[in-house]
Amino acid sequence: MEHARRHHASFVADLLAWLRIPSVSTQPEHAADCDAAARWLAERLTAFGVPAEVVVPAAGGHPLVVAAREEDPALPTVLLYGHYDVQPAEPLAEWTTPPFQPAVRGEDVFARGANDDKGQCWASLCAAASWIAAEGRLPVNLRVVVEGEEECGGRVLSDFAAAEPERLRADAAWVADAGLFAPGIPALYTATRGIVYLELEAQGARADLHSGMYGGVAPNPLLALCHVLAACKPWNGAVTLPGFYERVRRPSAEELAGWAALPFDEAAYQREDVQAPALPGEHGFTVLERLWARPTFEVHGIAGGFVAPGSKTVIPAQATAKVSMRLVPDQDPEVVVRAFEERINFLRPEGITFVVRVLETAPPVQLPLGHPVLEAGKRALAAAFGREPVVIRSGVSLPALSLLAHRLRVPTVMTGFGLPDDRLHAPNEKFHLPNLQAGIAATAAFLRECAALPRT
Amino acid sequence: MEHARRHHASFVADLLAWLRIPSVSTQPEHAADCDAAARWLAERLTAFGVPAEVVVPAAGGHPLVVAAREEDPALPTVLLYGHYDVQPAEPLAEWTTPPFQPAVRGEDVFARGANDDKGQCWASLCAAASWIAAEGRLPVNLRVVVEGEEECGGRVLSDFAAAEPERLRADAAWVADAGLFAPGIPALYTATRGIVYLELEAQGARADLHSGMYGGVAPNPLLALCHVLAACKPWNGAVTLPGFYERVRRPSAEELAGWAALPFDEAAYQREDVQAPALPGEHGFTVLERLWARPTFEVHGIAGGFVAPGSKTVIPAQATAKVSMRLVPDQDPEVVVRAFEERINFLRPEGITFVVRVLETAPPVQLPLGHPVLEAGKRALAAAFGREPVVIRSGVSLPALSLLAHRLRVPTVMTGFGLPDDRLHAPNEKFHLPNLQAGIAATAAFLRECAALPRT
Repeated sequence: MEHARRHHASFVADLLAWLRIPSVSTQPEHAADCDAAARWLAERLTAFGVPAEVVVPAAGGHPLVVAAREEDPALPTVLLYGHYDVQPAEPLAEWTTPPFQPAVRGEDVFARGANDDKGQCWASLCAAASWIAAEGRLPVNLRVVVEGEEECGGRVLSDFAAAEPERLRADAAWVADAGLFAPGIPALYTATRGIVYLELEAQGARADLHSGMYGGVAPNPLLALCHVLAACKPWNGAVTLPGFYERVRRPSAEELAGWAALPFDEAAYQREDVQAPALPGEHGFTVLERLWARPTFEVHGIAGGFVAPGSKTVIPAQATAKVSMRLVPDQDPEVVVRAFEERINFLRPEGITFVVRVLETAPPVQLPLGHPVLEAGKRALAAAFGREPVVIRSGVSLPALSLLAHRLRVPTVMTGFGLPDDRLHAPNEKFHLPNLQAGIAATAAFLRECAALPRT
Repeated sequence: MEHARRHHASFVADLLAWLRIPSVSTQPEHAADCDAAARWLAERLTAFGVPAEVVVPAAGGHPLVVAAREEDPALPTVLLYGHYDVQPAEPLAEWTTPPFQPAVRGEDVFARGANDDKGQCWASLCAAASWIAAEGRLPVNLRVVVEGEEECGGRVLSDFAAAEPERLRADAAWVADAGLFAPGIPALYTATRGIVYLELEAQGARADLHSGMYGGVAPNPLLALCHVLAACKPWNGAVTLPGFYERVRRPSAEELAGWAALPFDEAAYQREDVQAPALPGEHGFTVLERLWARPTFEVHGIAGGFVAPGSKTVIPAQATAKVSMRLVPDQDPEVVVRAFEERINFLRPEGITFVVRVLETAPPVQLPLGHPVLEAGKRALAAAFGREPVVIRSGVSLPALSLLAHRLRVPTVMTGFGLPDDRLHAPNEKFHLPNLQAGIAATAAFLRECAALPRT
């Protein structure tokens, strides 16, 4: 796309403007910023020639940006998906430059959301803009949906899909919310993990107690959480929830052979990517199997007691852990929640009562390998990057993908333009700007490929 | 003391003024408040007729208030000890009235430090004021030391005792920093537990990672802390540090018989005092043995990851636990620190590195039962409360008591005027004002009893 190359500077400037809006969906104080990010996008899309609307959900939650451009009823329809909401930026002290003051250093832009998902989503949308600017039209009918609740597990997109499914109906969808396999190596993802994210609250005595006066008899809810969480997940072992692995499907021999042939250096991955002294995990599985085809059990935070500088000798009355489990085909989030509750009830230490609060669930997804839409995606990625994409999975959870696959039944190409070291969800998130251009080229090629698809 | 009764309202008004100063020693932002609390006290003591000095430590830290009044070199010398610093007031939302706006409701005053130790310390000092106001003199020579680092484990008092031991030299000491055994039942404490307070920092990967992208291979330092802390302290079992119990001395049969005879109702204690569904603890020991004669292992807080509202799928690079162990005679804090390091090193999960930071240590203390000074203390408490004190232990740690007992070798009466439900170190700390008056009477009687002591 010659047009996209010529307009690169302007596309980058627009992206920086979008990144300046701190649209953190999980933090209530940023609700107005989420609205602003949606309005900003709807205005840009409309200016590009794709009339867009900000859909404010009646039941509350962050708005959707929904856009459409009809070229010709005889043409196939392609849906582009993305999300404008971003993860919280904390811990702020670890950012080299402030998370919402995007800074370009070398060929990278550093900001919360630079990759996930504003940068990647922007590449998809600029492809449509480039088509319209260069040709005066698109090769397909277009639908766009960009949500604001991807990072907070909200129900807005799901409710919209239930209420107005025709506005999301398409012959093919393109989701750029994953990443390249490695610099220059595009990837097509055939499965994503699901998730159960919950809070486990432990209550001991009715009030905080002094550990000198009560230590030895008062139940300590922090220690109780340590006991039950450690018992749920032996360090290098399997998750101990009852029936947890019953519905786990092993990848096919062919799929495993494809992964084994990938240019993947485990030692380099440990040293340069994870940067940890070891890669602990479930015995008997390779690193890629553990990332893509095995479920997990993680602790994300433990609140309660005293964590400020100094020493406070308190036995807190209450403590709460944030816990998630990633699920693989065909695990069912509801079954897993029940198994967790059963396990906690079994482990419950004397003197402690527990409450489980489910914050978010999403089922795992497996896409139809060999479908013409996926083949079109492969060709588009190959054209833009000058090499065949690798066919792999992703360990992340994408409720939108689940919606497209399970509810709307739109054949979906799941791909992305970020790099493995872009630090999604962490301080100093970045996006490599040459990949913005490659992403625009790949999406533009996908739109052209889709023009030739048989209508479903 | 008739004078003390007549001046009760004025003593209470002074106490409220002192409680208004938020002298939290562990929080750097309250350093100036600690200075103000010390200056306030020195001015009051001097006005009472006990010339006082604010001693600002050259090596940094919160000042000491040191006072003395010499009556006659032929008389014995009594040292009164207390501390003006208080615990942090967090969590603030759980206070009925603000922690540093003392509120009198019924016969109780509610404020951080109302009991620990401003209220109890104030009772001791008002006894000296009452003697001087009523008789124009004290029956003994007096020394006073009130420190500002009791709650933060600082070295200021210890350094002062090393540099100017003569200013703390005495024939007897009176420490009112414990409490009544029950309403109306005074207590004389013959032992206190020591403490080791430390931070255990766990480091996994170099940066925070996304649990979708890295879950299954990245070491999770929060889960690692859960594993090692749970392994150090089985829920109802003994602490598993190597050699931890080797130097633990069992109480004598006589001491145990005394405890068994106490008016102590375990069911009521659980229901009304601890207010927990059970009193978990080390198998094979009574509640009072676990509180007074057995060491503990507690987790006070775990920092790292994400604990704000909502769900953030982060595997933190780092997590830190605050841990304390209470020690009993004759455990040695340094030996315990080494045993902890050895245990952590043994348990260390693959992919995690640990750092141990010792924040505070104090050895356990055992006082010389049967000494004339302790007998004088018993008679003083009996006179003020109209019944013999019970002879028990305390589970708390008092470095000052350790200093008096081990370094300065001053026979010390350890007692107190607070109630078991005064919520030390917790929200809504209180002090029962009639016990201010009883504390003044007991201290005044102790000064009189000490006048008759043989000189050492």
